[in-house]
Amino acid sequence: MPVRVAVDAMGGDKAPAVVIEGTLRALENCPEGEIEVLLVGDEERIRECLAQHEKGDRSGIHVVQAEEVIEMGESPATAVKTKQRSSIHVGLGAVKQGLAGAFVSAGNTGAVMAASLFILGRLPGVARPSVISFFPTIQSHCILLDSGTNVDCKPEHLLQFARMGSVYARTVLRRDNPTVGLLNVGEEPGKGNDVVKTAYKLLDEAEDVNFCGNLEGRDVFRHGADVIVCDGFVGNVLLKFGESLVTALGHFVGREMQRQELDAEGQNLVMKILAGTGKAFDYQEYGGAPLLGVDGTVLIGHGSSSARAVERMIQSAAEIVRQDVPAAIRATMA
Amino acid sequence: MPVRVAVDAMGGDKAPAVVIEGTLRALENCPEGEIEVLLVGDEERIRECLAQHEKGDRSGIHVVQAEEVIEMGESPATAVKTKQRSSIHVGLGAVKQGLAGAFVSAGNTGAVMAASLFILGRLPGVARPSVISFFPTIQSHCILLDSGTNVDCKPEHLLQFARMGSVYARTVLRRDNPTVGLLNVGEEPGKGNDVVKTAYKLLDEAEDVNFCGNLEGRDVFRHGADVIVCDGFVGNVLLKFGESLVTALGHFVGREMQRQELDAEGQNLVMKILAGTGKAFDYQEYGGAPLLGVDGTVLIGHGSSSARAVERMIQSAAEIVRQDVPAAIRATMA
Repeated sequence: MPVRVAVDAMGGDKAPAVVIEGTLRALENCPEGEIEVLLVGDEERIRECLAQHEKGDRSGIHVVQAEEVIEMGESPATAVKTKQRSSIHVGLGAVKQGLAGAFVSAGNTGAVMAASLFILGRLPGVARPSVISFFPTIQSHCILLDSGTNVDCKPEHLLQFARMGSVYARTVLRRDNPTVGLLNVGEEPGKGNDVVKTAYKLLDEAEDVNFCGNLEGRDVFRHGADVIVCDGFVGNVLLKFGESLVTALGHFVGREMQRQELDAEGQNLVMKILAGTGKAFDYQEYGGAPLLGVDGTVLIGHGSSSARAVERMIQSAAEIVRQDVPAAIRATMA
Repeated sequence: MPVRVAVDAMGGDKAPAVVIEGTLRALENCPEGEIEVLLVGDEERIRECLAQHEKGDRSGIHVVQAEEVIEMGESPATAVKTKQRSSIHVGLGAVKQGLAGAFVSAGNTGAVMAASLFILGRLPGVARPSVISFFPTIQSHCILLDSGTNVDCKPEHLLQFARMGSVYARTVLRRDNPTVGLLNVGEEPGKGNDVVKTAYKLLDEAEDVNFCGNLEGRDVFRHGADVIVCDGFVGNVLLKFGESLVTALGHFVGREMQRQELDAEGQNLVMKILAGTGKAFDYQEYGGAPLLGVDGTVLIGHGSSSARAVERMIQSAAEIVRQDVPAAIRATMA
């Protein structure tokens, strides 16, 4: 049985062209018949785009009409209410109706979030659905949540993030008994603000969480834990800071090469290594950010997602569906 | 008139040896008679250390006896009460009595903070003294505060950080009309949690702050502002994450060089560029973190401070004294 992924063809800065290119790549780079895609959006524009690709008429692609588009700058609250025929609504509707196993979008993040809650609903026992982000570590990579959805958290929310993150790490990342760390300003149990102090106790007492204590900012890269929990304010700042690293580094390294008067050959060599290194920091390699805690599989990508990012997002979505993460979270949180 | 800096000879993981080496370097690398140092701590051990250096008997060094040492792992609250003859107390006492212009320590951060408040006191109008940290930017560097002292902040505290940070940027960093940004999860004014939403309004209305709006994590490296304000929880996580970058990067780059099977010559070349680049990220180059808002000049260094870090800390302290930053903050905050 192929996994069906509904893709927001209208989502992202360069939609639909980039989304369609990414979709074709995802289908090309997976075993025949493993994934099918519903391209959701302006049917005419989608078909025009598909026609420009050699393999645009390949099997495994279905076009689903959606009359409206929620633009990147629109207020999510208003758009979700007024544009009920948007590609986001129609795509999520396909998941709700069982026509697709997952929905992925590089569109308006707030709108995808709000519409997911509205159309799919929260899983029983989940107070706050949460978005995961990925950080490279010297070991492999770790996940961090919440990464921006919940800017004001209570200790119980952090405990829920720990539980949901553990499910993801166990199923999709295949980590046995994944460790969970609490992001804090110091290692000792009494450190931090009131929220994390209480969260520490809850995590320490939770039998289904393999809690390894407080982590500091410096512990992220050294793989302090498989799952790092924090409120969405801290998580979002850290995520965006991390994502800006590769660009900044390119600049700093370029300046240093000039200072050391490196010749062209040397510069090429350094840049080649740097480009390879940068891949670990490149959000496009991770695809989208999974939204955990809603009754369905949803991945949210950057507005600036490339075809490669869309490809990875579709592949990740398919894997989450195969592992049936929502069912595993349902079982854990109930 | 030389600037006199009281140095905690017993502070840091490798005290007093490293502290004394750094002190000698600071004196050697500044114009004759510009800086004098009070080395505060166990007089016998300090003199032993000095005797091991060729220029250990140079002028400009005064040894001040302090019978007690607050260890790195001690509880600040208890130690500050019970060890009133510690090198931290005696050093800060020298500032209080006007015998020194500044105190620098790579010792127990919490104890230095608490003793500074206790001995020097807050400047009038300052609710929360705050520690600055430095981030490299594509332009030069920016300062961020609070970086860990205040893990629970009210909007008014963020406004005060903006004011104090502006004074520091104007005087020590010589930035004309320094810009101030509010660290947040999005650019739009309505973004973030309740504290930053209110802080946005206060900053926007403050006539003595050159507020440039919200900044995201990705805006730090691109020099979104000269001064970035945030609560100490976020600031501390970001600071420590940033400090871990160079080590992590060395690892990632090493792995990539292996993967690309780079020869030894190529590896040397890459590592040389990386080492030069890493300097911008190296906290040792910035020396210590200035504590703003107390009635005196205090800089706090890492426990792992090298001689180079101690040297830079003493130089920075002298510059803060020359610019009379506490007086400028007093004038601003009153």
